Amino acid sequence: MRIGVDAMGGDFGPVETVPGAVRACRELGLAITLFGDRELLDPELKKAGADGLDIAVVHAPEQVGADEGPVLVLRKKPDSSIVRGMRALKEGDVDAFISAGNTGVLVTGSILLVGMMPGLRRPGLVALLPTLKQRPLVLVDAGASVDPKPGQLAEYAVVGSIYAEEILKRTNPTVGLINIGAERGKGNELSRQAHQLLESAPVHFVGNIEAREMLSGDVDVVVADGFVGNVILKMAEGMGMGLFGLVAAEVRKSTWSRIGGLMLRSRLVGLKAMMDYSEYGGAPLFGPCQPVIKCHGASHQDAFRNGARLAAEFVRLDVVGRVQSRLQEVSGR
Amino acid sequence: MRIGVDAMGGDFGPVETVPGAVRACRELGLAITLFGDRELLDPELKKAGADGLDIAVVHAPEQVGADEGPVLVLRKKPDSSIVRGMRALKEGDVDAFISAGNTGVLVTGSILLVGMMPGLRRPGLVALLPTLKQRPLVLVDAGASVDPKPGQLAEYAVVGSIYAEEILKRTNPTVGLINIGAERGKGNELSRQAHQLLESAPVHFVGNIEAREMLSGDVDVVVADGFVGNVILKMAEGMGMGLFGLVAAEVRKSTWSRIGGLMLRSRLVGLKAMMDYSEYGGAPLFGPCQPVIKCHGASHQDAFRNGARLAAEFVRLDVVGRVQSRLQEVSGR
Repeated sequence: MRIGVDAMGGDFGPVETVPGAVRACRELGLAITLFGDRELLDPELKKAGADGLDIAVVHAPEQVGADEGPVLVLRKKPDSSIVRGMRALKEGDVDAFISAGNTGVLVTGSILLVGMMPGLRRPGLVALLPTLKQRPLVLVDAGASVDPKPGQLAEYAVVGSIYAEEILKRTNPTVGLINIGAERGKGNELSRQAHQLLESAPVHFVGNIEAREMLSGDVDVVVADGFVGNVILKMAEGMGMGLFGLVAAEVRKSTWSRIGGLMLRSRLVGLKAMMDYSEYGGAPLFGPCQPVIKCHGASHQDAFRNGARLAAEFVRLDVVGRVQSRLQEVSGR
Repeated sequence: MRIGVDAMGGDFGPVETVPGAVRACRELGLAITLFGDRELLDPELKKAGADGLDIAVVHAPEQVGADEGPVLVLRKKPDSSIVRGMRALKEGDVDAFISAGNTGVLVTGSILLVGMMPGLRRPGLVALLPTLKQRPLVLVDAGASVDPKPGQLAEYAVVGSIYAEEILKRTNPTVGLINIGAERGKGNELSRQAHQLLESAPVHFVGNIEAREMLSGDVDVVVADGFVGNVILKMAEGMGMGLFGLVAAEVRKSTWSRIGGLMLRSRLVGLKAMMDYSEYGGAPLFGPCQPVIKCHGASHQDAFRNGARLAAEFVRLDVVGRVQSRLQEVSGR
């Protein structure tokens, strides 16, 4: 098994991707192929002590800006790290690809380069959100498709449900549609139409769910359009971290609370880890026939290491294959 | 000054609205008119000891279901509490109206019954969100218009900005557009078009803002479409409460952490109050020419009392009039 890493993606580029990949290789025994500008990668590999490790480099020097259109990138930047990586995935040179680069390029590349699994129009990003029940919920779409059709949300419900069953081992997982009210007719045009489709979709649909109920963990899968899903993901991230910062600041304000804080410390650190999305390493993109993991743009080396670990688990468990065959079963009904 | 209260609105109806109104009258010296079914209100008034207080009742026995279409309600339920209340507002029998009822009816009633201030197509709900800077940010639209046109978002930016200046006393308040990436071309069709319009709007537009950055409090006003804004509001609510519940549960797990928790208690309670949206009492609906305050559906008596207080402040400060005249200034430019 070999994991492809987009070494140029993310806010910090090779400075974080390379040590992350080196750690995935050294600590987890994974074979890695880095895609990126060799001139920038080599010094980082040296610095990280990569000699003797199974790390290949595919030279891909073309740069992609954050605001470049996906279709243009695919057409005009064949030697960018993200396009080379996805081609290698298609050709079987790597078994999974992780990238903190442009989501739009990953989505369009999944459709045009890697190829989609039958039954899905466009890829959906699957993210796990921590809940008060100490078991995560599946959020889909967390940001791949920002102007979806209602039918796509029904497809995402199926993918999320299969994922919850196959990977998280939930029995008959419940699926909720994110909305701004519990009643059937609530919401915008998209959510009203999606609600109707979900009622006849082959999932255990429990109706609308409001954002404030998500944290309770009563629902296994939450379906959202990619724009709303991404807002939810980032808000959870910001509030999780922000509130713990706030508690920490309060703790520092007096001697008593400082002593109290010390006593609570180990417990709060555990909670913080549960809220720390970089622990998950990234969010899988469902749709492409091979595993693609989207890492957070602000990822540091820990997240890339964990992203490679997640990609390897996907290959080992054949997650994409299992979802694909369940999807065929479901659509064959 | 007289505050109108929709006594039938909200998840709990008169059991919570009436004692809330009685407390607003007794504790804050406000004159109140309750709109609702007299047979249900009288026993609650008695129970709450309302004798001798300046509380009038307008009999409005017709019931409105949560899933009834706003236009139909306005046409067919003239004797519902929400329609009677909005009519009384229009006719000057009350100076402000608070309701935990159907948002759609409040929005459509603002347009068709109360009348809109010039310069706004549809009402927007203005909510205050706590931030780490200990000063709230203005979120608009927090749920009034779920399928807005891009131009409406520009109008909401102006309203939010004026509100931040006039009421929160911010100088040259910064306005951010909620989006899923910092770059100009990011987001869905609506946010891309709104971004362009905001660049030439008479506000201090600072570009896209991601949900995770909101809590920092660096931006004064956040503009969102009503669907996304409502998801943000409810998520903040759920996470604020949920995380404190999580901390509390951890505290109870061992003697040491329990002692630590006791020492931290007063500090955490202060934080919790900052995150408790019922303290604000409700969210003003901007658009109608008279103050309309939307209370949370799950409001208890505290929230109704505080909602009446907020409504009274709006009347005293002539918030609607000030926003309206600033809006004319701005649109006359």
